[in-house]
Amino acid sequence: MTELYLEDLHVGDRFQSDTYEVSEKGIVDFANDFDPQPFHLDLDAAKRSVFQGLAASGWHTAAMSMKLFVTGGLRLAGGSVGLGVDQLQWPRPVRPGDTLRLQTEIIEVRPSRSKPDRGIIRIRNVTTNQNAEVVQTFLASVLVRRRPTTLGNEQ
Amino acid sequence: MTELYLEDLHVGDRFQSDTYEVSEKGIVDFANDFDPQPFHLDLDAAKRSVFQGLAASGWHTAAMSMKLFVTGGLRLAGGSVGLGVDQLQWPRPVRPGDTLRLQTEIIEVRPSRSKPDRGIIRIRNVTTNQNAEVVQTFLASVLVRRRPTTLGNEQ
Repeated sequence: MTELYLEDLHVGDRFQSDTYEVSEKGIVDFANDFDPQPFHLDLDAAKRSVFQGLAASGWHTAAMSMKLFVTGGLRLAGGSVGLGVDQLQWPRPVRPGDTLRLQTEIIEVRPSRSKPDRGIIRIRNVTTNQNAEVVQTFLASVLVRRRPTTLGNEQ
Repeated sequence: MTELYLEDLHVGDRFQSDTYEVSEKGIVDFANDFDPQPFHLDLDAAKRSVFQGLAASGWHTAAMSMKLFVTGGLRLAGGSVGLGVDQLQWPRPVRPGDTLRLQTEIIEVRPSRSKPDRGIIRIRNVTTNQNAEVVQTFLASVLVRRRPTTLGNEQ
């Protein structure tokens, strides 16, 4: 797959990911490692919680969405390095058996003022489940390389 | 440890976490699962990247910080349910061998307008390494239960 530079990217460009199958084991393993709360670990306790059933940690949803992002269509030259995230929300729980997808839309493209070899894009990432219900949204600023010139001026 | 309700929490309250030891295996395992990019997976490739050495995925840093949060001093009744995150940034990479700590400060406390049994707190979470360098910051809104009254009015 072609690696993309700042010059290849435009406001309004959209990228669709593959799919990610969420398993009960995946939810519980992540929770044991990073977010050991009853509603992420135990079916019965989860039923009595605000989630009314086993639900993935929001940070697990973020991590699964990153997998979809990195393996999706927006392959940046030099890799995807996040500079910051805003408006990260989890409007609906992620459940065992869900199939997640990620849609990425470019909402801003700008060259760096101080570094001529790079720029920053701002993207909106929306993760949905198999019923097209939104389970996560956020905005991110991502570092992007500018295409190296091949016509002189380099030292 | 006592579970805390909205009435127990005040603007300016601070909570310190335990520590989290970051291993090379932990960084690589997380990256394999969720963020398979060379600078999170491979020492040599990482040296040639913008990180100039192996670095944890930002989402791994977020997950490790959640572990510190959940096992730290701010134990909320009913658990910690995040409603949203803003200004999530990773100002410095997390490296193998780092020891992370989390400091949480309450910056807002307010009852829900529509639901009398709950409220929302806004917190600032700052993750630092063993040199007191900041590796992650964010603001979060978290659901908090109000203390159930024991003096009548319940049905």
